[in-house]
Amino acid sequence: MYDGIIQDLIDEFGRLPGIGPKSAQRIAFHILQTESFDVARLAQLLIDVREKVRFCEICGNVAEEATCSICRDPRRSPVSICVVEEAKDVVAIERTREFRGLYHVLGGAISPIDGIGPDDLRIAQLLGRLGDGTVTEVIIATDPNLEGEATATYLTRLLVQPGLTVSRLASGLPVGGDLEYADEVTLGRAFEGRRSVQR
Amino acid sequence: MYDGIIQDLIDEFGRLPGIGPKSAQRIAFHILQTESFDVARLAQLLIDVREKVRFCEICGNVAEEATCSICRDPRRSPVSICVVEEAKDVVAIERTREFRGLYHVLGGAISPIDGIGPDDLRIAQLLGRLGDGTVTEVIIATDPNLEGEATATYLTRLLVQPGLTVSRLASGLPVGGDLEYADEVTLGRAFEGRRSVQR
Repeated sequence: MYDGIIQDLIDEFGRLPGIGPKSAQRIAFHILQTESFDVARLAQLLIDVREKVRFCEICGNVAEEATCSICRDPRRSPVSICVVEEAKDVVAIERTREFRGLYHVLGGAISPIDGIGPDDLRIAQLLGRLGDGTVTEVIIATDPNLEGEATATYLTRLLVQPGLTVSRLASGLPVGGDLEYADEVTLGRAFEGRRSVQR
Repeated sequence: MYDGIIQDLIDEFGRLPGIGPKSAQRIAFHILQTESFDVARLAQLLIDVREKVRFCEICGNVAEEATCSICRDPRRSPVSICVVEEAKDVVAIERTREFRGLYHVLGGAISPIDGIGPDDLRIAQLLGRLGDGTVTEVIIATDPNLEGEATATYLTRLLVQPGLTVSRLASGLPVGGDLEYADEVTLGRAFEGRRSVQR
């Protein structure tokens, strides 16, 4: 144990996800000893992130105004909505450059064990966006785990309406992976979703 | 990429040692979304650690006063000094409860490749502490790597003086380790330092 402040700083970093006691110590000493590290800037950002960052009124993505930069972008196609669990997923999909429509962030997934039901997610807001018939495609991109699958199944049943296509992301072998090391569920899905390569 | 502040916070966390882009993102969202995480406290500690934490005038350990809590402690034996590279090493040794003397933090190790020579370390201050003959034992506890060994060898030669015992920590197999997986240098040292178990 150290004297006062440095130990308090180590403890505080240790409360963050993925930072164990050794890393917390290394970070605290780095901050103490690295003159070029701007402590005032990090301190201000910590305050600002809580005060100024909010969630888009339309899609639930992170935003610093009432709506996020994607919802405000006139170049994005308003006919298709990709439904994700978290704002982090929006960034992951944006990185692929495969999708030019809009998003809807649920704020989690259905998980009875954690006491999260459909009413705790932004599902009513999603239905609200589908009301005027502009949206013709909903792509469900929840996580490929138990909670994500349950949420996707729930939404699939809920979104049956004329003129609306609902799809889900493909499951299968990860690109660059080794077939030998794929778990049986993934391999089973890859079989199930096999595509004809003959013309 | 996100809008403004959240991305700035992710970038700032990404500058810290051992935090990659994914972890930085996870931490930033945790801070944004976890109401119970006290951002004001972490922000204040960041400012305080630079303003209030300094280094002990005697040993170079971290301190919030002119001297550290170990140097001020009258129960610590003033006859032996354990020489370490960093303040972190003091904590590691304190945890063993094996040593009840004082410390001397060099502030690094001799490393020609990084441009660190003996004059960049707190070696003159160490010699100053040995002047009045109170100290009879110096234990060199630098890291068991190239730089630490070079520093230990340098100090060993420098500290030849009557009435002063100089020792170094034992090298050998780590407790709980597997002989099979020990590298050859460690295994070689373990042979070299073998101890008779017969009486």
